[in-house]
Amino acid sequence: MKSKFIVIEGLEGAGKTTARDTVVDELRRHGIDDIVFTREPGGTVLAEKLRELIKQGVEGEKLTDKAEVLMLYAARIQLVENVIKPALARGAWVVGDRHDLSSQAYQGGGRGIDATLMRSLRNTILGDFYPDLTLYLDLPPRLGLERARTRGALDRIEQESLAFFERTRARYLELAAQDESIVTIDASRPLDEVSNAIRLALGTWLAQQGATA
Amino acid sequence: MKSKFIVIEGLEGAGKTTARDTVVDELRRHGIDDIVFTREPGGTVLAEKLRELIKQGVEGEKLTDKAEVLMLYAARIQLVENVIKPALARGAWVVGDRHDLSSQAYQGGGRGIDATLMRSLRNTILGDFYPDLTLYLDLPPRLGLERARTRGALDRIEQESLAFFERTRARYLELAAQDESIVTIDASRPLDEVSNAIRLALGTWLAQQGATA
Repeated sequence: MKSKFIVIEGLEGAGKTTARDTVVDELRRHGIDDIVFTREPGGTVLAEKLRELIKQGVEGEKLTDKAEVLMLYAARIQLVENVIKPALARGAWVVGDRHDLSSQAYQGGGRGIDATLMRSLRNTILGDFYPDLTLYLDLPPRLGLERARTRGALDRIEQESLAFFERTRARYLELAAQDESIVTIDASRPLDEVSNAIRLALGTWLAQQGATA
Repeated sequence: MKSKFIVIEGLEGAGKTTARDTVVDELRRHGIDDIVFTREPGGTVLAEKLRELIKQGVEGEKLTDKAEVLMLYAARIQLVENVIKPALARGAWVVGDRHDLSSQAYQGGGRGIDATLMRSLRNTILGDFYPDLTLYLDLPPRLGLERARTRGALDRIEQESLAFFERTRARYLELAAQDESIVTIDASRPLDEVSNAIRLALGTWLAQQGATA
């Protein structure tokens, strides 16, 4: 089977790290061993520098919404061109912690950046490059933030209001409903149930792609 | 007279610094004393960090053309929102060493980034914000690079080929021919002649704006 780009998406505290382990385990069960991990923003030296600037901001300077989304796309195209596309080309599978859907949800939904600008940025920067499968871990923001808080200090984005995350979640759900390549997983359940749902969704999808278990 | 945003543009070695001094001197002669200087990319803490990344690149990682132009626009919108617009709003004049025309010429012309993408980026990020007057210092790239070299080591962009700068110059000239707010100054002449030409162009423009000498 041709190598694929699988993305895990969701709000803070949705359980993306556990989901990644589950995805990898399931891929291995299907005989897929050459797997590259990415996280966004980040994954190249430049992209990680941009991630720091985005996450921490700059003391005493307002980071405009437009600069934020431009830096996210700069980091993304560095990762896509220098890491993801070369990995897929040599036959590796790529499992990504966040990709473009995060920008559509957080910057488009949460921050309310104009939908035309968001579409235009995606299309002009990424062209016809899309993930093959996105697993969107859905849960109420309040629950996710409670989980995220137990991990320590919140960064600039994690400190946004609950209303921001409600708008972000609404955009995630809206886009997932329009796109067959996005599978919504109810992540408000206990972890083992979420993992089972991921295994089932991924296994079904792999079977459709022509894999043998 | 309402405060204005005046931009000085041109290739490396075109004499932008001397031109800035001439512009300031001429503005003062017209009784304009509250002047803010900007340079692009740069001019805010975040924009200067992005400038460093753009100018020096990252060891061992290809900086894609798209990431470069996205970072330039991120730096630009930070400067416009946090420095230029507030300065104009309080009545100061702003004199800029480079602005959007540089991206159109270097990234659009020199790097050959698609014209639709360049237009779309400018319009979606900057909207209806434009300089009031741009002085474009035109000279053959070979001459400019000779001058730039005498100033020391060349950065990542200054090390581009002569053909890159020829394309950049061609785009500068093409855009200047289409836009009445861009005045082209022959910068291949001796410095005092260039300064005189700048004084004349600026003085004429100020008179049109209703200034008194």
